[in-house]
Amino acid sequence: MTGPTDTPSSAGAGAATAADEAMMRRALGLAELAATLGEVPVGAVVYRTADGTVLGEGFNRRETDNDPLGHAELIALSAAARAVGDWRLNDCTLVVTLEPCAMCAGAVVNARVGRLVFGARDPKAGACGSLMRLTEDARLNHRVTPVEGVLADACGDLLRTFFRSLRSGTGGV
Amino acid sequence: MTGPTDTPSSAGAGAATAADEAMMRRALGLAELAATLGEVPVGAVVYRTADGTVLGEGFNRRETDNDPLGHAELIALSAAARAVGDWRLNDCTLVVTLEPCAMCAGAVVNARVGRLVFGARDPKAGACGSLMRLTEDARLNHRVTPVEGVLADACGDLLRTFFRSLRSGTGGV
Repeated sequence: MTGPTDTPSSAGAGAATAADEAMMRRALGLAELAATLGEVPVGAVVYRTADGTVLGEGFNRRETDNDPLGHAELIALSAAARAVGDWRLNDCTLVVTLEPCAMCAGAVVNARVGRLVFGARDPKAGACGSLMRLTEDARLNHRVTPVEGVLADACGDLLRTFFRSLRSGTGGV
Repeated sequence: MTGPTDTPSSAGAGAATAADEAMMRRALGLAELAATLGEVPVGAVVYRTADGTVLGEGFNRRETDNDPLGHAELIALSAAARAVGDWRLNDCTLVVTLEPCAMCAGAVVNARVGRLVFGARDPKAGACGSLMRLTEDARLNHRVTPVEGVLADACGDLLRTFFRSLRSGTGGV
């Protein structure tokens, strides 16, 4: 973090911080791990917004674990809650390479996640701007406006490469 | 199951079966267990639709486990997926005492749950008829029309009694 405008605490609701970008690079590394297992490459990190401490991380493990809940976000959120001993994550930022689906966006609301940052959009299932805006629904008891597009090209390229290799039958990346 | 009209396989999309009611009574028992832990009393069961085999069950454990994902439905779905060794639960019915929230409704879609049955509506957070109809969204890659109102009075009474005792400071039911 190189200056006051780069720290999470000084950022506006819609601004990505240097910490967000650093965590997105970490999430991209996790997504690459997922790809080596033949999983759709999505990675997620939960960090304490004030000081950048990583509290939880995860990557998509649905096929490996045969678990419909095996999305990167849920794994990272559950780990973070265990780490802090509280299901309320208001002081935390969730960074994920792909726009969360309805399940994961609902988990963001339930966990009262303070900030949500994602990379690429998911036009087929994204619930944070593409198909709906679940985390901004005024009727729910917690709201968070997502910061989107952080390292979006790298996040999207990883997914495109993965699906291209699936179609060509060469396996994961 | 006393006759052909009571079996799941012969039921229409909107009809509750005798098996659904039996499973709802089981889910109510799980919800009562949650209340004894001071948890909001919600219980859930996943059973194989064809033969009524219970594959997973759960009750709300959010406070006990400090887990934002600790809803009855997610616990039951995860257990069922482990039991069958597959994240796809098309052949299964999820029975839950309270209308699922967005997170749990999203999980129903992701797990491709074949049938969804719930008891009482949740006007504050319900995503299967109250605030939205997530499991019926034509843009998502799986849809299920909920069967609602099964033992709704008993399901709702359990919640009302719990919240009344909380307000009066006498703890769980």
